[in-house]
Amino acid sequence: MPVKIAPSILSADFARLGEEVRAIDSAGCDWVHIDVMDGHFVPNLTIGPAVIKALRPHTQKPFDVHLMINPAQPYLEAYAQAGADYITVHAEADVHIDRSLQVIRGLGKKAGLSLNPATPESVLEYLLDRLDLILVMSVNPGFGGQSFIESQVEKVARIRRMIGDRPIELEVDGGVNAEIAPRLIAAGATAFVAGSSVFKTPDYAANIAALRP
Amino acid sequence: MPVKIAPSILSADFARLGEEVRAIDSAGCDWVHIDVMDGHFVPNLTIGPAVIKALRPHTQKPFDVHLMINPAQPYLEAYAQAGADYITVHAEADVHIDRSLQVIRGLGKKAGLSLNPATPESVLEYLLDRLDLILVMSVNPGFGGQSFIESQVEKVARIRRMIGDRPIELEVDGGVNAEIAPRLIAAGATAFVAGSSVFKTPDYAANIAALRP
Amino acid sequence: MPVKIAPSILSADFARLGEEVRAIDSAGCDWVHIDVMDGHFVPNLTIGPAVIKALRPHTQKPFDVHLMINPAQPYLEAYAQAGADYITVHAEADVHIDRSLQVIRGLGKKAGLSLNPATPESVLEYLLDRLDLILVMSVNPGFGGQSFIESQVEKVARIRRMIGDRPIELEVDGGVNAEIAPRLIAAGATAFVAGSSVFKTPDYAANIAALRP
Amino acid sequence: MPVKIAPSILSADFARLGEEVRAIDSAGCDWVHIDVMDGHFVPNLTIGPAVIKALRPHTQKPFDVHLMINPAQPYLEAYAQAGADYITVHAEADVHIDRSLQVIRGLGKKAGLSLNPATPESVLEYLLDRLDLILVMSVNPGFGGQSFIESQVEKVARIRRMIGDRPIELEVDGGVNAEIAPRLIAAGATAFVAGSSVFKTPDYAANIAALRP
Amino acid sequence: MPVKIAPSILSADFARLGEEVRAIDSAGCDWVHIDVMDGHFVPNLTIGPAVIKALRPHTQKPFDVHLMINPAQPYLEAYAQAGADYITVHAEADVHIDRSLQVIRGLGKKAGLSLNPATPESVLEYLLDRLDLILVMSVNPGFGGQSFIESQVEKVARIRRMIGDRPIELEVDGGVNAEIAPRLIAAGATAFVAGSSVFKTPDYAANIAALRP
Amino acid sequence: MPVKIAPSILSADFARLGEEVRAIDSAGCDWVHIDVMDGHFVPNLTIGPAVIKALRPHTQKPFDVHLMINPAQPYLEAYAQAGADYITVHAEADVHIDRSLQVIRGLGKKAGLSLNPATPESVLEYLLDRLDLILVMSVNPGFGGQSFIESQVEKVARIRRMIGDRPIELEVDGGVNAEIAPRLIAAGATAFVAGSSVFKTPDYAANIAALRP
Repeated sequence: MPVKIAPSILSADFARLGEEVRAIDSAGCDWVHIDVMDGHFVPNLTIGPAVIKALRPHTQKPFDVHLMINPAQPYLEAYAQAGADYITVHAEADVHIDRSLQVIRGLGKKAGLSLNPATPESVLEYLLDRLDLILVMSVNPGFGGQSFIESQVEKVARIRRMIGDRPIELEVDGGVNAEIAPRLIAAGATAFVAGSSVFKTPDYAANIAALRP
Repeated sequence: MPVKIAPSILSADFARLGEEVRAIDSAGCDWVHIDVMDGHFVPNLTIGPAVIKALRPHTQKPFDVHLMINPAQPYLEAYAQAGADYITVHAEADVHIDRSLQVIRGLGKKAGLSLNPATPESVLEYLLDRLDLILVMSVNPGFGGQSFIESQVEKVARIRRMIGDRPIELEVDGGVNAEIAPRLIAAGATAFVAGSSVFKTPDYAANIAALRP
Repeated sequence: MPVKIAPSILSADFARLGEEVRAIDSAGCDWVHIDVMDGHFVPNLTIGPAVIKALRPHTQKPFDVHLMINPAQPYLEAYAQAGADYITVHAEADVHIDRSLQVIRGLGKKAGLSLNPATPESVLEYLLDRLDLILVMSVNPGFGGQSFIESQVEKVARIRRMIGDRPIELEVDGGVNAEIAPRLIAAGATAFVAGSSVFKTPDYAANIAALRP
Repeated sequence: MPVKIAPSILSADFARLGEEVRAIDSAGCDWVHIDVMDGHFVPNLTIGPAVIKALRPHTQKPFDVHLMINPAQPYLEAYAQAGADYITVHAEADVHIDRSLQVIRGLGKKAGLSLNPATPESVLEYLLDRLDLILVMSVNPGFGGQSFIESQVEKVARIRRMIGDRPIELEVDGGVNAEIAPRLIAAGATAFVAGSSVFKTPDYAANIAALRP
Repeated sequence: MPVKIAPSILSADFARLGEEVRAIDSAGCDWVHIDVMDGHFVPNLTIGPAVIKALRPHTQKPFDVHLMINPAQPYLEAYAQAGADYITVHAEADVHIDRSLQVIRGLGKKAGLSLNPATPESVLEYLLDRLDLILVMSVNPGFGGQSFIESQVEKVARIRRMIGDRPIELEVDGGVNAEIAPRLIAAGATAFVAGSSVFKTPDYAANIAALRP
Repeated sequence: MPVKIAPSILSADFARLGEEVRAIDSAGCDWVHIDVMDGHFVPNLTIGPAVIKALRPHTQKPFDVHLMINPAQPYLEAYAQAGADYITVHAEADVHIDRSLQVIRGLGKKAGLSLNPATPESVLEYLLDRLDLILVMSVNPGFGGQSFIESQVEKVARIRRMIGDRPIELEVDGGVNAEIAPRLIAAGATAFVAGSSVFKTPDYAANIAALRP
């Protein structure tokens, strides 16, 4: 199964997001990754449900919505209604994670859980049957200018072993480039978030292709 | 001095915000009003500094940035750097308001203070010399589908008397339409935020003009 | 119009609340006052919606529910469904009070606002048309063993003048006894919360009658 | 050693709690389980110390008080004084758990720790010598209408192995019925919380008996 | 009655505070002003009860302790036991101020309330009979490098009128120097906090004297 | 490599801290341990950056600054500038620990992580390459009068195995005395915090020496 590429619109031109979304769709992306930050769980504020809703008509590709917000639970329905396909919450931002994942699936969406770089994979142990996606952060969410954290390759490998043959996507976000991608795939990753590596030059198709081994 | 019209891009098409900003600019708006919500001070999350920065090249008109966030102080610099001209904080979201207003001016920006519908104008008393703009909320910020709160007309009149001849803009936000506008101007308002009343039909110029008495 | 007496079940026997409610009903109370505390807005935790719901069948008298909780807004619907008639929130526990009061009325309930002893009545200024009840705290909510705070008599008088001929109940809570009651009525109060002064001895009817001048 | 049955008064009639407590006592319950929720750690508010105190004279059976509150530490003394025998705090609601457990024992009470469904048992590792009870949540606390989470059977088994021969009760709360009970006992559980399965029909004795294998 | 000078040890040498306290005592200060900051109410952390306790043997002069902390109520007893004479809390940091002031007096200490520059004096209205001291902040607490805020002279005058003949000290803190002092005294101030203006040069006696008109 | 002794100035005389620091320096301490508490992460408030800065000229020994504050990230720069050499944050007080440790090293300081008694060492797993020091709390931070928690000896041993040959200091804080010290060294500790055991009698050199096996 080929790796999925999910360009993060955080690196797109916010003045013409619809066009950008159509462009990455044409360029062959698998998912559209949307980073939602609230200035509380992380020290940055990005975009919320109304923006997601406005983008929904511009592509049929799944919206992979990464909620870097705390609390998330009161807002899950809003993101579902805005058009999210995957809704991913953070292990460090909720003490009732099992509940959040149930709510997401109850809304008819795919449920994801994201782990910060320092978070051990043991948080997943009792949640594997609730999950459609696990998002390993290979940089610290919400901060700019960071480089890939090497130790997360081993985390990906361990989570792959925990997943077994469950149909769970294993996505990696942060500093992934053409050199790192094959190592993560070897460790068991099935999807990558890609920011500037997709949007850095106008040929998005080439940039996306470069991330596929 | 004619009243200023500040269309809120919250009612624009988020998929093509640059185009929308250029359109309201051409249509004769005075300011571009930008509603920043964090899902904490208000139960909604909209857009943050990166979106504002992306819109900055699309118009020369002043960006009137309304921060419905708490805390605001750690983020003031980010909004200044993103291209805000007016930065408005909320009286209910900060216990060190005098400081926040000093910081905004220290960043070279115009300093605004917004009052929720229930907040008495007495909060302004010791701040008048720090202010370039006062924003009277005539609906509750962050909630949809509300109608203009009548009592705020009297609040506008009282604030006008407090302002005296200081060069402070007195802006009203929420449910303002062509019928209400003249009464607010009579009470002393100098600027209106307009959402759906501008963006409801394609002829933004006509819609803006309709708000000017 | 005779003053309304609202015995607080906080002083009743929690082991047989239904019986207690029927007893004060028979004894001639006007309302049943229910003190909800969350251990956050005040340093005590009392009872929530499930208890209120269980008491609802035991009387037809109005339930006067005083929410000493923060936040209150996410829970207003639960208290409405549990059978509250009046739902009173605290001026100090919400920055979107106008909204909370609209929500309460939207739920078909009567909307109240409570003021802590130190809170000036200026918080009411822009809310008078949203209110069915104003609750003046003449002790600090959530703490035991306090005596009536004299300065609140003057506050009652001032609020009475603000109310004018609006149909708003003006209720006082804390340390009210047969000696203080007439002074509060003279100042404009229309209702009293009574705790131990009702439940201190088995003859609730006599105890309630003693509070009526 | 026979399994202990702890009916949760959350499913009792709150209008006559004393009577209900006497009824489950007569019906042969081992403990009385009391669910304290604060509307913050969980999105529901139930009952606090004053209710517990009122129930204390109605039975000699141990009160098994489950604190779903955050913070718990400032209130431990109040629950001890109200008549709790077991005081159980949540692993997810305190960063100074070792301290809380010391305080509970210092108050002369038995100390419990509760784990949400997603919480791995590794949180117990350095606390085993402080504990008299471990409470495994087999539903998410504070939310209604949930079914038993299968993965918690394995958690019970693992905790049983960690406990070794320490005299620690291993209690399970949520969706336990006559079909599930034997599996949990086989896995090492020594006590069950039972809500509607006890109170659903008037014959509490039969309902309790049905939970004993 | 001569104005009281309260040097703030925030400007003293923290490496030899005992010596500094003896020096300002000898130099004729009236009170020792102690600024307690917690990094939450204000963005700085200074010193707490253990430091105050260590300084207590070094002077008989009253300790005027200014709590820039939130919450203050759980810590009032600690500051009383550490040796505070005046304990001043902030109007913006407590929703149960009447209670806090009662607690301070109940601990046998003098109760103070401090107002941030933007806070209107109306917060004092129902507290005047609880107060031994009112502290007007003429800079924003917790931030460095600020200059005296002119509008606070008028606030001092208004508070003076509210105080009437009650025995309440009216203290001003922030940027007070020999030029400003006489104007504040004329407006009704009875005490000044002085930081660098006392500690700037070794002759503390001269520096203190210069602040007395 | 001999064990390092880090006397905590929390047990020193706060009235003459400079002198105390010079005294422990002369007495042969290795580090000066500084306990920063904010009254939020722990229920006590001690000293902040200004005190540390004032002590910096009094010794060349490393300042080992233990931040018992939450949040820590906004204040890391202040502690670096005040003269800290080691800056240690708490695993339980930050959801972006990897980031905090990067920031500390980016400030040119040594990065430490502290674990409360109940916290499993699994939190360290993905952080080992970011760490210069691990601080095992063998009492609960911020509370007085506690005794050494035995289970932490085993935690030290396990962390030692995780560290391998990385150059990470393994420090223990709380109740360490001459009897316990050798067991901790045997388990792999390389440094001790010592409070009253150093400052209890005037001969600091003897007291420090007694802690070295």
